Amino acid sequence: MEQQKLHSIDLKKIRIKDSFWSKHVNLVKDEIIPYQWDAMNDRIPGAEPSHCLDNFAIAAGRQTGEHYGAVFQDTDIAKWLEAVGFSLAANADSKLEETADEVIDLIAEAQQDDGYLDTYFIIKEPNRKWKNLCEGHELYTAGHMMEAAVAYYQGTGKEKFLNVVKKLADLLCETFGEEEGKIHAYPGHQEVEVGLIKLYYVTGERRYLDLAKYFIDARGVGENYFLRERKEPGYRNIFPELVDYQPTYSQSDRPVREQNAAEGHAVRAAYMYSAMAELAYEYQDQELMDACVRLWNNIVGKQMYITGGIGASGILERFTTDYDLPNDCNYSESCASIGLAMFGIRMANITRDAAYIDTVERALYNTVLAGIALDGKSFFYVNPLEVWPDNCMERTSKEHVKPVRQKWFGVACCPPNIARTLASMGQYIYSAGEAELYVNLFISNEAEIDLGSVSVQAEINTKFPFENEVEITVNHVPLDGMTLAVRIPQYARNYQVMTDGKAAAYCVEKGYALLTLDKDIRITVSFEAPAEYVRANPNVRADCGKAAVVRGPLVYCLEEIDNGKNLSELYVDTSREIEETDSELFGGIKKLTLKGKRIGEADWNEGELYGRHPLTLTDVTLQAIPYAYWNNRGMGEMTVWVRELV
Amino acid sequence: MEQQKLHSIDLKKIRIKDSFWSKHVNLVKDEIIPYQWDAMNDRIPGAEPSHCLDNFAIAAGRQTGEHYGAVFQDTDIAKWLEAVGFSLAANADSKLEETADEVIDLIAEAQQDDGYLDTYFIIKEPNRKWKNLCEGHELYTAGHMMEAAVAYYQGTGKEKFLNVVKKLADLLCETFGEEEGKIHAYPGHQEVEVGLIKLYYVTGERRYLDLAKYFIDARGVGENYFLRERKEPGYRNIFPELVDYQPTYSQSDRPVREQNAAEGHAVRAAYMYSAMAELAYEYQDQELMDACVRLWNNIVGKQMYITGGIGASGILERFTTDYDLPNDCNYSESCASIGLAMFGIRMANITRDAAYIDTVERALYNTVLAGIALDGKSFFYVNPLEVWPDNCMERTSKEHVKPVRQKWFGVACCPPNIARTLASMGQYIYSAGEAELYVNLFISNEAEIDLGSVSVQAEINTKFPFENEVEITVNHVPLDGMTLAVRIPQYARNYQVMTDGKAAAYCVEKGYALLTLDKDIRITVSFEAPAEYVRANPNVRADCGKAAVVRGPLVYCLEEIDNGKNLSELYVDTSREIEETDSELFGGIKKLTLKGKRIGEADWNEGELYGRHPLTLTDVTLQAIPYAYWNNRGMGEMTVWVRELV
Repeated sequence: MEQQKLHSIDLKKIRIKDSFWSKHVNLVKDEIIPYQWDAMNDRIPGAEPSHCLDNFAIAAGRQTGEHYGAVFQDTDIAKWLEAVGFSLAANADSKLEETADEVIDLIAEAQQDDGYLDTYFIIKEPNRKWKNLCEGHELYTAGHMMEAAVAYYQGTGKEKFLNVVKKLADLLCETFGEEEGKIHAYPGHQEVEVGLIKLYYVTGERRYLDLAKYFIDARGVGENYFLRERKEPGYRNIFPELVDYQPTYSQSDRPVREQNAAEGHAVRAAYMYSAMAELAYEYQDQELMDACVRLWNNIVGKQMYITGGIGASGILERFTTDYDLPNDCNYSESCASIGLAMFGIRMANITRDAAYIDTVERALYNTVLAGIALDGKSFFYVNPLEVWPDNCMERTSKEHVKPVRQKWFGVACCPPNIARTLASMGQYIYSAGEAELYVNLFISNEAEIDLGSVSVQAEINTKFPFENEVEITVNHVPLDGMTLAVRIPQYARNYQVMTDGKAAAYCVEKGYALLTLDKDIRITVSFEAPAEYVRANPNVRADCGKAAVVRGPLVYCLEEIDNGKNLSELYVDTSREIEETDSELFGGIKKLTLKGKRIGEADWNEGELYGRHPLTLTDVTLQAIPYAYWNNRGMGEMTVWVRELV
Repeated sequence: MEQQKLHSIDLKKIRIKDSFWSKHVNLVKDEIIPYQWDAMNDRIPGAEPSHCLDNFAIAAGRQTGEHYGAVFQDTDIAKWLEAVGFSLAANADSKLEETADEVIDLIAEAQQDDGYLDTYFIIKEPNRKWKNLCEGHELYTAGHMMEAAVAYYQGTGKEKFLNVVKKLADLLCETFGEEEGKIHAYPGHQEVEVGLIKLYYVTGERRYLDLAKYFIDARGVGENYFLRERKEPGYRNIFPELVDYQPTYSQSDRPVREQNAAEGHAVRAAYMYSAMAELAYEYQDQELMDACVRLWNNIVGKQMYITGGIGASGILERFTTDYDLPNDCNYSESCASIGLAMFGIRMANITRDAAYIDTVERALYNTVLAGIALDGKSFFYVNPLEVWPDNCMERTSKEHVKPVRQKWFGVACCPPNIARTLASMGQYIYSAGEAELYVNLFISNEAEIDLGSVSVQAEINTKFPFENEVEITVNHVPLDGMTLAVRIPQYARNYQVMTDGKAAAYCVEKGYALLTLDKDIRITVSFEAPAEYVRANPNVRADCGKAAVVRGPLVYCLEEIDNGKNLSELYVDTSREIEETDSELFGGIKKLTLKGKRIGEADWNEGELYGRHPLTLTDVTLQAIPYAYWNNRGMGEMTVWVRELV
């Protein structure tokens, strides 16, 4: 950590206009924000009620009534406001801003004099504040409020919401910590750490950072707080699945520095690791950094789906064990992949190592995009890699797997989380240093980027990921020069950087091509990343004997609509070429054509389950589409991994 | 149903002395009955407490204290007594009988004056009797008491226990039924129907049969009783998984005659179908019989594992959908396979169709035997076809799958259920008619069998299933002749019946070789049933591209101890011969040697999860053992289905 950490760019100063991403990014302002606003106002027919705004109105004393919804229902509003903040940074919208300001007024009114802000406890259990840290989600909710307020402040410059969360954060600083008289505890669902750190970055108030560090340092040390808390009189178990609580669920079974493998609830883990990375840097805590590296390597090397999904178990939405990656009953929550991207970009900014971005890109281009329909109106929480709709039945071991995207959920974490991620893609595209501009992702945009005290203009033009040529322009290069670092993706072959018609000089460091600029420049980066078959480490039992098709960052899949029923009958012939063709599907993709065989059913009679019939194979031609776009053409089977002919 | 139903033989008059089965059957008296006795007395270190006898002592007023255990805890004692009854039929044991008599005295003392008998409600909720039929298990417990009492009566001739359950059954007749003033309801867990029918068979009291019929006829008709019951004041939900109750779980969503596919909890279903079959016969109810046939065909043709396991979902231990047969996360409860055998033998006795026995045999020789360790001291509830111990973790989607057999369980249904099944194998070996003796299973024994008013002596000598020659002797053939029907298993090829050195004349009817006997006879039945590869219907997604090895009724499996770690890396070459060798393992088996290939790991670095490494295959020789015996040599991976080379 000798180098200075890279930082995200100002989202107000980037305009994304990308052939691949813009249709998704635009959904945020055009569809998701209005849709989520309707959802929070309970105006979506057939969707579970949110009651979120009513809860705040009741807490504010504007209306009477009961709290409705989960203990973390307030986060609906926080995540909406965060997306609005990011969206307003990119696109001014006075009407939206006015609506958001009104919501913020409501939140401010609901906040109590001491800074407390959680409508569930204000309305329903005012005497139980901070008494159920394990399940009550007060600190989780506070963290999302902080993230939202920071985004809104950065997007609009308005401080009202920021002041609300500062007051809340001040209350947390008074309430939690190692000093006598404070509660010696840590959050049941990590998230406030990330929020406090962001709040520190915009306010400079060191105590917020210190509190985040306290939460991380205290976690899992000594007697488990949550187990102790449950024994207190009045403790009420909220979530049935947590009746018999095990600290591994919340990564609190041991000190974070002693954790070697990702375990427990995947979203909790990823949010915590994100905070750990930033704290490691801020406090130059190598031991903490080592833990981050170990945990990252465990996830990426042993517990991650090829789509960037994490969390193999449907029960408790959790990590299980190394190489346990079942394809049809996994959880792989959209939020967990967002958490992985959050963790990864922080690690990349600290280490300047492009390997982290390879995984960030994998998560964003596959699981995160698959989490939202192309019309922006329905969402996956669970992201299986193989779906047979018939057996995604309620009250079975596959009940968590939904074969079609769902409308707004009761537990509405994923939809707004996807929205805020899409609305803040700029943070992933570039990272900036004092005199270095890092290009992480190949997404067309125009940006003005602060490098130390100067500001450069950057522009990317590309049709990536379907074409692998990226034009990068940097203007206003400072007189004393700068470094342009362009990522070399792990899948790129014959990587070339051209300028003025000739090869540009660069050196390679940790997966980036480093160019020294002393004047404005336009470069063209090109590489080959043809569609190809990949295999999984044979320790991944579920994928043994199978292959998947990838093309650059995109994982492809087979859908029933293109390939008929029963995709399990298929084999791919990995020795044959994969054919790429342009298709107008999904706003324009490269569709892939594979050669393979299909097991015949002709010998089998209805109701004949086992027998000696020979295996009969017929030649078939298969069509694959990006996993990001599956289930946009009705319900049907889907698979990423296909058995290969040997 | 024009023909008279076949009946079971008198278990007192059969002695099993079989090279394959005796070691299992003997476990009942030598190990399981004493072990379960210790378990019921809470004398097994490390096992969950039963408290079962204490509950009865408290209910009887012999001691004070609280009820402990599940609502159905009484059935531990019932199932133990049932096994004791069967065991005493086979082997007199005055000490055991004395102990059992004392337990029966205790049960009789615990019974209330009106006949009521359920210690949970007597002790704990005396005002809630019959008010939670959905979850309270009172009728389920009553059914097990009836089955036990009948077995004990048949094994010992003693009537005390029988009188206890008659009094209980009389109470049920007064309490339930369509008449005004009675409760118009049906059991939440079917079982009492089977018990009432058995009680009718030994007592001739028609009202018991009629009540069983009422329970079946009323089920699922009109407003669901369980949903109504839950709305009554004071209703208390007992099982968390049943909070949001769905009638399909207990096959009460529609009238039984309208049910076409097996659904819901597999044990409930199989017990109900067993009763339905007998009622269909007793009332000559063709519509009910048609439902039985449909449900049987659905199970056997679309929802049954090759091992005779049923119930694909870990959650709610239930049937899911046609062809949904995952191998590594299934439930396939031992009790459910016992229920399937119960259903099958009843169907076979009614229809005289050997196809039912093919499935009974499949369940008994594979799942039921696998349910118990060779030492009789540990048990599987869940019977997966593929196990990777590392990921059978608590609090994950595979938490129900245990990689090793467990000691006595809190919910102790499977161990005593296996015990009573082993102790009553005689009912499966033969079926008897007025002048017909059916040989269903090839198990060495000597028996005296009543055919109408005469009695014949039968003897079977065989080393089946490892050798396919069966010597059957029938002496005391009545003067007016009789029919000997010997099953022709579906897997038998070149089936031959020899007598006195020459081929015997027989005709084939519904899978039985029918021989007309006019004098005593000794025949030798022989057939070929070599080890062979079978495949699953390609609609079974989980088995596509895979093969399993069977040999006669035995399904084989690969274990880690013989074949190394990571069985998913293996392929079998189904074009190569399977080699059979005698082995001393497990008391003597035919071990099978298969040829195949293994995927190499050499190209893969630690922490490298996905990549372009080629698929490398090396030749391997694999060892397979009967599934019945897996996990008798320590914990390790196991699989039944193996990918085949194509």
